[in-house]
Amino acid sequence: MTDLKEGVCLSAFWYSHEQCCWTSNETTFEDRDKCPLWQKWSELLVNQSEGASAYILNYLMYILWALLFAFLAVSLVRVFAPYACGSGIPEIKTILSGFIIRGYLGKWTLLIKTVTLVLVVSSGLSLGKEGPLVHVACCCGNFFSSLFSKYSKNEGKRREVLSAAAAAGVSVAFGAPIGGVLFSLEEVSYYFPLKTLWRSFFAALVAAFTLRSINPFGNSRLVLFYVEYHTPWYMAELFPFILLGVFGGLWGTLFIRCNIAWCRRRKTTKLGKYPVLEVIVVTAITAIIAYPNPYTRQSTSELISELFNDCGALESSQLCDYINDPNMTRPVDDIPDRPAGIGVYTAMWQLALALVFKIVITIFTFGMKIPSGLFIPSMAVGAMAGRMVGIGVEQLAYHHHDWIIFRNWCRPGADCVTPGLYAMVGAAACLGGVTRMTVSLVVIMFELTGGLEYIVPLMAAAVTSKWVADAFGKEGIYEAHIHLNGYPFLDVKDEFTHRTLATDVMRPRRGEPPLSVLTQDSMTVEDVETLIKETDYNGFPVVVSRDSERLIGFAQRRELILAIKNARQRQEGIVSNSIMYFTEEPPELPANSPHPLKLRRILNLSPFTVTDHTPMETVVDIFRKLGLRQCLVTRSGRLLGIITKKDVLRHMAQMANQDPESIMFN
Amino acid sequence: MTDLKEGVCLSAFWYSHEQCCWTSNETTFEDRDKCPLWQKWSELLVNQSEGASAYILNYLMYILWALLFAFLAVSLVRVFAPYACGSGIPEIKTILSGFIIRGYLGKWTLLIKTVTLVLVVSSGLSLGKEGPLVHVACCCGNFFSSLFSKYSKNEGKRREVLSAAAAAGVSVAFGAPIGGVLFSLEEVSYYFPLKTLWRSFFAALVAAFTLRSINPFGNSRLVLFYVEYHTPWYMAELFPFILLGVFGGLWGTLFIRCNIAWCRRRKTTKLGKYPVLEVIVVTAITAIIAYPNPYTRQSTSELISELFNDCGALESSQLCDYINDPNMTRPVDDIPDRPAGIGVYTAMWQLALALVFKIVITIFTFGMKIPSGLFIPSMAVGAMAGRMVGIGVEQLAYHHHDWIIFRNWCRPGADCVTPGLYAMVGAAACLGGVTRMTVSLVVIMFELTGGLEYIVPLMAAAVTSKWVADAFGKEGIYEAHIHLNGYPFLDVKDEFTHRTLATDVMRPRRGEPPLSVLTQDSMTVEDVETLIKETDYNGFPVVVSRDSERLIGFAQRRELILAIKNARQRQEGIVSNSIMYFTEEPPELPANSPHPLKLRRILNLSPFTVTDHTPMETVVDIFRKLGLRQCLVTRSGRLLGIITKKDVLRHMAQMANQDPESIMFN
Repeated sequence: MTDLKEGVCLSAFWYSHEQCCWTSNETTFEDRDKCPLWQKWSELLVNQSEGASAYILNYLMYILWALLFAFLAVSLVRVFAPYACGSGIPEIKTILSGFIIRGYLGKWTLLIKTVTLVLVVSSGLSLGKEGPLVHVACCCGNFFSSLFSKYSKNEGKRREVLSAAAAAGVSVAFGAPIGGVLFSLEEVSYYFPLKTLWRSFFAALVAAFTLRSINPFGNSRLVLFYVEYHTPWYMAELFPFILLGVFGGLWGTLFIRCNIAWCRRRKTTKLGKYPVLEVIVVTAITAIIAYPNPYTRQSTSELISELFNDCGALESSQLCDYINDPNMTRPVDDIPDRPAGIGVYTAMWQLALALVFKIVITIFTFGMKIPSGLFIPSMAVGAMAGRMVGIGVEQLAYHHHDWIIFRNWCRPGADCVTPGLYAMVGAAACLGGVTRMTVSLVVIMFELTGGLEYIVPLMAAAVTSKWVADAFGKEGIYEAHIHLNGYPFLDVKDEFTHRTLATDVMRPRRGEPPLSVLTQDSMTVEDVETLIKETDYNGFPVVVSRDSERLIGFAQRRELILAIKNARQRQEGIVSNSIMYFTEEPPELPANSPHPLKLRRILNLSPFTVTDHTPMETVVDIFRKLGLRQCLVTRSGRLLGIITKKDVLRHMAQMANQDPESIMFN
Repeated sequence: MTDLKEGVCLSAFWYSHEQCCWTSNETTFEDRDKCPLWQKWSELLVNQSEGASAYILNYLMYILWALLFAFLAVSLVRVFAPYACGSGIPEIKTILSGFIIRGYLGKWTLLIKTVTLVLVVSSGLSLGKEGPLVHVACCCGNFFSSLFSKYSKNEGKRREVLSAAAAAGVSVAFGAPIGGVLFSLEEVSYYFPLKTLWRSFFAALVAAFTLRSINPFGNSRLVLFYVEYHTPWYMAELFPFILLGVFGGLWGTLFIRCNIAWCRRRKTTKLGKYPVLEVIVVTAITAIIAYPNPYTRQSTSELISELFNDCGALESSQLCDYINDPNMTRPVDDIPDRPAGIGVYTAMWQLALALVFKIVITIFTFGMKIPSGLFIPSMAVGAMAGRMVGIGVEQLAYHHHDWIIFRNWCRPGADCVTPGLYAMVGAAACLGGVTRMTVSLVVIMFELTGGLEYIVPLMAAAVTSKWVADAFGKEGIYEAHIHLNGYPFLDVKDEFTHRTLATDVMRPRRGEPPLSVLTQDSMTVEDVETLIKETDYNGFPVVVSRDSERLIGFAQRRELILAIKNARQRQEGIVSNSIMYFTEEPPELPANSPHPLKLRRILNLSPFTVTDHTPMETVVDIFRKLGLRQCLVTRSGRLLGIITKKDVLRHMAQMANQDPESIMFN
């Protein structure tokens, strides 16, 4: 569908340009793109392949197709599955932390996201397919776990399946099984027990194996951007690599700030009311600017692949237009550094323009109401910057062999600088700056490229990029979006170091009305119904009596309502002034009182408690590690109050001098 | 020192064979091992290089050197640092789970383990250096963290440093930084917060970078056993790969069972009293049997390297003695499958003998009182088995092109089977069977070899091997040794699925004397001193009064003793019948009573509590995730009992039908 924007295959319209030319007789390398069966739109419609009018016609067709794909995508999302938009990773992180967003992992989302993802990627917008594929994989995981009661009934088990599904998603998106497992561990999952590691690994194995059997890239390799470099890297090159790391960190910061500011504007102003129009306008601008520049016209993954590549002897790309030494007779693998030809300089200009365009347009694209991933655009930005730096260093080294920094490792006639490696390092740095991944980033990068030997440059760039970006703000793009959307997400990575105590956070505060509690054997059904009506708490602590306030358990609001309703309908003698009791034995009642209602069944006898003197550092730790939603506060066995997850989040925001009200789900 | 067993370099005795011959004039490939400066012992001592007497002399010198190295190593360990023996990984796992073994990470251990590790590896014993290097790295980590009060005073922070040190240890042992981080995560660390992931990553980066700067293998590569295969693998090959996985699992089970049985015998019989003699005997047997067989005489890492290698055109190894096609004129990279020559068949026999010998001797070697790692011997066993299977499949494919399984992927003249790949897969399977690693195993394997494309075969073998081995027993070798040594280690990987409650596990049981508690303001100093003298508990719960039994906190035994001692010495008026109080205000006392002693300072006001109805599944989870040592049990605010980590371990053993007394530290 991407190629449909440029032309059509006469033998079968669903063939891509490459597939169309497979059966062609034009077998020489230079002519592989030109085969009679593939016709540009101008050739097909007005039978012209050159000239200004043909160019304009092709240009228009390109824009038209892009608009059609984008319009279809945004309409499908709006009408059928509003949750199918975005990358989905922030929401999956939130879901895995224990929050429930109904329908987010539903079947409609799965279907619509799969279809629209194909459309938006084909439309040429500056977005990738990796994040959405994780969402799609989690939808599948959710669907399969709903089939087995072991998983559908146990929230914890279901989250383990989702973690494994996320790993499988990345595994197929990149052909990177290990990277997928680590991505799920580092970036997506909230609490990742070791047995999940092993299961995710298995899921990723099966995913990779299936991918290998289907063999989508036709080269028996899992690797998406396979590269083969012929020279090792040199210690002195660490300096430009670290510079690329700094660039990646700055890009990450810039992107996150601008994108969040734009998304906030979308949420708060009229802009958010016209999502279809927004998508159409951004697609039109993208297509109009992208077409004239070959590096933006081609699909982003092709661009990355070209930028990563080392210039072999047969490379026809403009980026490889070096001036060859006339003494060199036959093409060899290990080509020495050569002076750049005119094509390389042209390419440098075009790359610079493409870089600026990508940086700007990606900020506006990510967050629109269509499926949109961020990996590929970030990598493209980094790869463009990296390739330019790489060519710069290469030419510097070629023309200044005698400089002290080059003298040791770059004699004349040696192949000492590989610009493709710089592109790879730059891509890692930019991806790291945006997402703040570390280990998973490096693993994904070398699974993507097969460049295991370049682990130290990749790690150096990733570390630098994370440091630089963290200096400007701790949040990665996913956390920033979680924050923007106000999901109640307790980040495991933040350290809580303040010296507050549980008593400072718990409700009720001083001056507030006392905590709504149930007593174990002295409230009537009517009392409880009134309490339920007047409050909207999710549950109520149960105490021995209002005087002693000794805690015996916790009753969920939902179960309480259900139990009372059932008892009133089915149980004889239950009236409004029946006594409700949570003890084993019914309380002693006056002779003429109505039949009491036993509710021990719904009582949670092991509610989580801390004392009022517990440091909040410990409380936060307990909430995180045990995934609690609330926790009761006691002092010497007496119930004092309650701390909910929202209280914890509000307190943490307060301590970090943020507006606590911005934290809540909205 | 390994080469010193065979001969000596005349120009400088500390040169290895290879280094010695670097300056030699013998530059042809075949003669690279024969240079006049390097003299075998027979040449040096009796001026004979061939013949039976020369062979016997060399044989004797080999055994003598081996015995000398081993004797030195075991004596050093015995005299200076008994903790320097073994691999150290079981103990580091236990330490990271919260248990303290004093001196285990001390400076003497660091020094002696480093020196003796060199000796034992040179002695030719069947052991590796990887586990001990992790221990050495943790000693360094412990030393550095003792220099900074932030780390030396906070046990949790210190453990994070140790986790990172373990990652750095594997990073230098294998040149595998990512594998190191994952090994630390999956195998060594107990609780691994995400911020430790990032820090371990950084430590591993610096370690890899330093290693790269020193360039120990002289090839600018981090990779230890760099291999380059020229053909992809085929789907049908998964069958032998899975067979190798089964073999790895069986070997793992056999090794763990036999090794544990032998180590138990060493602990319980007289055998354990003669560690020096044991090492001498095993070394002598190893040297006597190893010398005649070239595959056991060479160092194990050289053996693995040779087994992993693909047979290039120039390969002089016996394993590559194929019958070349006379029509093939010049050596090419992509050599088709050829029939095996006589050398290959000889090598197969020798490999088979070496395999049996390695399997048997490793069982007796691991666990002796010298530093000993298990990675390299396990990998060697797997690599030998794998290479043999690989050669078998290759010859089968060569001679039976027409069989249905070969017809699709192995035409005559094609290079379809790479025996080196089978060796790699076999090594992964055996290592997996012994250690039960999964993700880290695969990452280490491809970091070791650079074989990123073979991730699916490696994963398949690792998964099969783990399944097979787990079917015979859940414990890996490290857990088995933890168990054998009776360390109180609560494994995070075990699932606790029984339906017992906290009340079934807590002390005191029915019929036992009541819990020893302190009251908040009614016990005298003497009462408390008597209680301390009569019991050996680590601490005491503090309650309001013996009647109400409402819990207010927990006092550590150590702090209690110290506080009373200080008060008696320094505080005026504190006598044996002074009242001790833990409240804010002193209790109201009769007029003539002695001055009371305030101890609120040492009271932990936030002890961890659960109710008696809490399922043990939750309790085990809390102990693991929060790293607790004890937990108090209450019912409606009343203290009922206490559960310690040992109670939990004992209960888990009981539920698994094991002898609960075997669990305790002895």
